[in-house]
Amino acid sequence: MTTTDRPTAAKRDTYTPETLLAVAVNVFNERGYDGTSMEHLSKAAGISKSSIYHHVAGKEELLRRAVSRALDGLFAALEEPRAQRGRAIERVEHVTRRTVEVLMAELPYVTLLLRVRGNTQTERWALERRREFDQRVADLLKAAAADGDLRADVDIRLATRLLFGMINSLVEWYRPHPDGGAEQEQLVDTVVRMAFDGLRTG
Amino acid sequence: MTTTDRPTAAKRDTYTPETLLAVAVNVFNERGYDGTSMEHLSKAAGISKSSIYHHVAGKEELLRRAVSRALDGLFAALEEPRAQRGRAIERVEHVTRRTVEVLMAELPYVTLLLRVRGNTQTERWALERRREFDQRVADLLKAAAADGDLRADVDIRLATRLLFGMINSLVEWYRPHPDGGAEQEQLVDTVVRMAFDGLRTG
Repeated sequence: MTTTDRPTAAKRDTYTPETLLAVAVNVFNERGYDGTSMEHLSKAAGISKSSIYHHVAGKEELLRRAVSRALDGLFAALEEPRAQRGRAIERVEHVTRRTVEVLMAELPYVTLLLRVRGNTQTERWALERRREFDQRVADLLKAAAADGDLRADVDIRLATRLLFGMINSLVEWYRPHPDGGAEQEQLVDTVVRMAFDGLRTG
Repeated sequence: MTTTDRPTAAKRDTYTPETLLAVAVNVFNERGYDGTSMEHLSKAAGISKSSIYHHVAGKEELLRRAVSRALDGLFAALEEPRAQRGRAIERVEHVTRRTVEVLMAELPYVTLLLRVRGNTQTERWALERRREFDQRVADLLKAAAADGDLRADVDIRLATRLLFGMINSLVEWYRPHPDGGAEQEQLVDTVVRMAFDGLRTG
């Protein structure tokens, strides 16, 4: 599905809210949420605006659904058994690994989440949820430090920011390959190793 | 100096190309280079367009000067004695440290450099120079790996990207404080430690 300027009447509406979302998230990422009108969405989907309104109340609902998909994936990782049980250092490593995996699996949705600016209520809600997620990871790092498993000379707030800085930078260049399973696993391993063990040999 | 809509005739032109640059880089970062017109620059500087043309040939020259300031700082770091002599691992650590320091010292200029997109000749030149810098750092990492000082299980290209992902993410949240010397030093130390030694204790 690419953005075209062809007449919107050309296509029968075979969308579901989910497939429409896949079109919308790409338009949001290309033009920015603020810069996207219902007209742009209608052109990209190849259906009329009223057909879109048949599925969703408007572009803010599409934004909410799109960022929810990213946030649900991230928060679900925090509830997994390996994020809940065991030493904090193992739990935070698991969450780091799963965060990278969710980013790769839901790339356009996480990209959109990371670009949200806070001009609308939905954007502010998304920012708030992001901060909540970051705080949960910071809490795990704090617990790992209390266990003596984290370097004492590192400020946790700073470490959390740098960890997410490293992870989130993937949206700038990572593009999935059809047969990229091994490549993806290597990428996840490298992020976790670099963050927790560093690049230097033992 | 903030962006205002006051008449441009209000202010006498006391700019030099350097002080004008400080205004321009902020406007570029706020509006994006593509979205900035000579009119915007004239309003932000509070002088007429013809006064701006007295200093520079146009907005592309301002962009070139601005990204050059960032690039000159980064490339100068590569020429320092500690980046030139000694084990590769020590040299790449030094360059990492200096890269963070240049980013903090030249924050608006490095921010602009990292946002350059490649629509004009100057932007493409800046992207090319950035790639050159990244390649120089990748070469140092490769040399450190050949010395056995870098984990053998990490892909150098990937490590370079993650290292810059971590460093460059600072432009999103780092803001200098007037008395922030100690804070800056801690930040630089944390980046270098996390990248090379990881967060985990020994």
